[in-house]
Amino acid sequence: MTLLIISGSSREHSNSEFFAEKAASSYTGDVKWIRLREQTIHQIHDQRHDENGFDPIDDDHSKVIEAMLDADEVLFATPLYWYGMSGYMKTFIDRWSQAMRDPSLNFKARITGKPGYVITCGGDQVDIKGLPLILQFKHIFEFTGMDFKKYFIGEARKPGDAEKSDRLDQLQDFFR
Amino acid sequence: MTLLIISGSSREHSNSEFFAEKAASSYTGDVKWIRLREQTIHQIHDQRHDENGFDPIDDDHSKVIEAMLDADEVLFATPLYWYGMSGYMKTFIDRWSQAMRDPSLNFKARITGKPGYVITCGGDQVDIKGLPLILQFKHIFEFTGMDFKKYFIGEARKPGDAEKSDRLDQLQDFFR
Amino acid sequence: MTLLIISGSSREHSNSEFFAEKAASSYTGDVKWIRLREQTIHQIHDQRHDENGFDPIDDDHSKVIEAMLDADEVLFATPLYWYGMSGYMKTFIDRWSQAMRDPSLNFKARITGKPGYVITCGGDQVDIKGLPLILQFKHIFEFTGMDFKKYFIGEARKPGDAEKSDRLDQLQDFFR
Amino acid sequence: MTLLIISGSSREHSNSEFFAEKAASSYTGDVKWIRLREQTIHQIHDQRHDENGFDPIDDDHSKVIEAMLDADEVLFATPLYWYGMSGYMKTFIDRWSQAMRDPSLNFKARITGKPGYVITCGGDQVDIKGLPLILQFKHIFEFTGMDFKKYFIGEARKPGDAEKSDRLDQLQDFFR
Repeated sequence: MTLLIISGSSREHSNSEFFAEKAASSYTGDVKWIRLREQTIHQIHDQRHDENGFDPIDDDHSKVIEAMLDADEVLFATPLYWYGMSGYMKTFIDRWSQAMRDPSLNFKARITGKPGYVITCGGDQVDIKGLPLILQFKHIFEFTGMDFKKYFIGEARKPGDAEKSDRLDQLQDFFR
Repeated sequence: MTLLIISGSSREHSNSEFFAEKAASSYTGDVKWIRLREQTIHQIHDQRHDENGFDPIDDDHSKVIEAMLDADEVLFATPLYWYGMSGYMKTFIDRWSQAMRDPSLNFKARITGKPGYVITCGGDQVDIKGLPLILQFKHIFEFTGMDFKKYFIGEARKPGDAEKSDRLDQLQDFFR
Repeated sequence: MTLLIISGSSREHSNSEFFAEKAASSYTGDVKWIRLREQTIHQIHDQRHDENGFDPIDDDHSKVIEAMLDADEVLFATPLYWYGMSGYMKTFIDRWSQAMRDPSLNFKARITGKPGYVITCGGDQVDIKGLPLILQFKHIFEFTGMDFKKYFIGEARKPGDAEKSDRLDQLQDFFR
Repeated sequence: MTLLIISGSSREHSNSEFFAEKAASSYTGDVKWIRLREQTIHQIHDQRHDENGFDPIDDDHSKVIEAMLDADEVLFATPLYWYGMSGYMKTFIDRWSQAMRDPSLNFKARITGKPGYVITCGGDQVDIKGLPLILQFKHIFEFTGMDFKKYFIGEARKPGDAEKSDRLDQLQDFFR
């Protein structure tokens, strides 16, 4: 069994990645990471209704999608930037509309039923102001057919806060 | 009086832009447009807590921010991509965290109290599944001190749908 | 075809009822009203897991349920009290848990697929602060199998406001 | 210091009350309970705009309000019935509109700044479908000036589930 963690954080040693790591330590299988900031992923150009469909884009998107479809379970870890997922994460997900139309990926069939997890963190009343993000992921998972298993909202404002969080025990058995 | 429309759409003649145009036709002042797809805006690198703060980024972000802070009112028009604002829009807004720390922009003082509007559109139960986006903008506006005046959710799936929408009369007096 | 309007308003000539009336004037069939304030409906006593199930309650609930299940379409009209449906409406809906277990009502089979509508109104940023209510109704409709067709959020603070609303034209073709 | 727990559950030994009890065991002060099912509280009759204001209602509402305003902190514990607070709780809160206009209660001054907590529980994807309730309480607390400290969402379907919950450790230090 493999878990893929897709991180939308924009900096090294981020709090959301720390929380994801803690959660992953309870996973009894292989854990892989993709940090979107280390990939080149362009914004979507919506050509869903163009006669010839999408123009191919030469970047890392298909590679990340392949890894995601290969994994048994997927954890999306993103800081709460402006009360939503990071631009890295959103740019990546927008391109799913293109990936779904790429027959070589077989996106829909391979993602249906796949367990999905969300970990986010932020500072300003994150337990409440992070809820629209959770609702958004619910819709995303429903649309793809993924199975929304669980989410975790961490509180962290500045580098290092996650390590001192009093919620770490909630992550201890995250995957059990 | 000037209204700036910031569009997060990824394609020409988009439905969300059509709806924004309809709304803007009731505006009794100058209307300006910025289409984010025509700008180069990089993802944020979160250096809020770095000793030396943010590294300057050489792209169009400050120019768009200047236009936004200059305008009397701002309308954010974005398609609903994956139940949220587009990656173009999110990438732009993430960088506000950097702009807020650029003393030459005087971001906070100039944005406080500015009237803000949101227009979005989508296809899959958009009136309901678009609500997390509205809630997110509410938090964004609250944080900056903008005044969330009004939003409009349009239904449109494919190019041209907006023109045939039976909600156009809701836009007729959008700014009156 | 019949439309049943179930009103949760606590006063005569309420704004939410005015909006519902306007909407109903576009309905090409019979329109019936039930005002919950004129019915006696007790709070639920949750006995879902009692060996003998629910004790029968002698009030008007079954009668209202019968009318609801008989109607072809149902419109729930409720003022936004404290950012949710009124206590009248909530008390009524809570008892659905009991009605669902009353074999003589055949609740589930008769409600599945029935078109449902929501009209609410309030004063304090109702377009945004009313959204949790819409999300709640979405879940209610999903659970029962009802088909959430449409909602309308009106702005009204004091008696008579609805009549002067600039949103009445949105209701003109509500059922068309 | 005193904590008042106001319970909206409709049955003895309810799961939400069990979770509230667990949380309260970390409270270093007096803990009091009011179970709304043991009180007589009538639906509101909205007379906010009547010339003579509200007619006095002879039931237990003022008594409960007095206890709430007297307490240093208040925990609202309610099962998630139909994706919202119970009818007992909603009926109680609706009447705040009346209590706020009763000069003898001095409602607004005494509630402003009071710490508020919410505990709910349910079965059907409660972590996600319970979110509209949390958003609603946020608005309620904001309107009154209460300080929304914390919430807990428990998962429990049938009597006794709370005791076996794997989230009990989240409640251990709920008030610390």
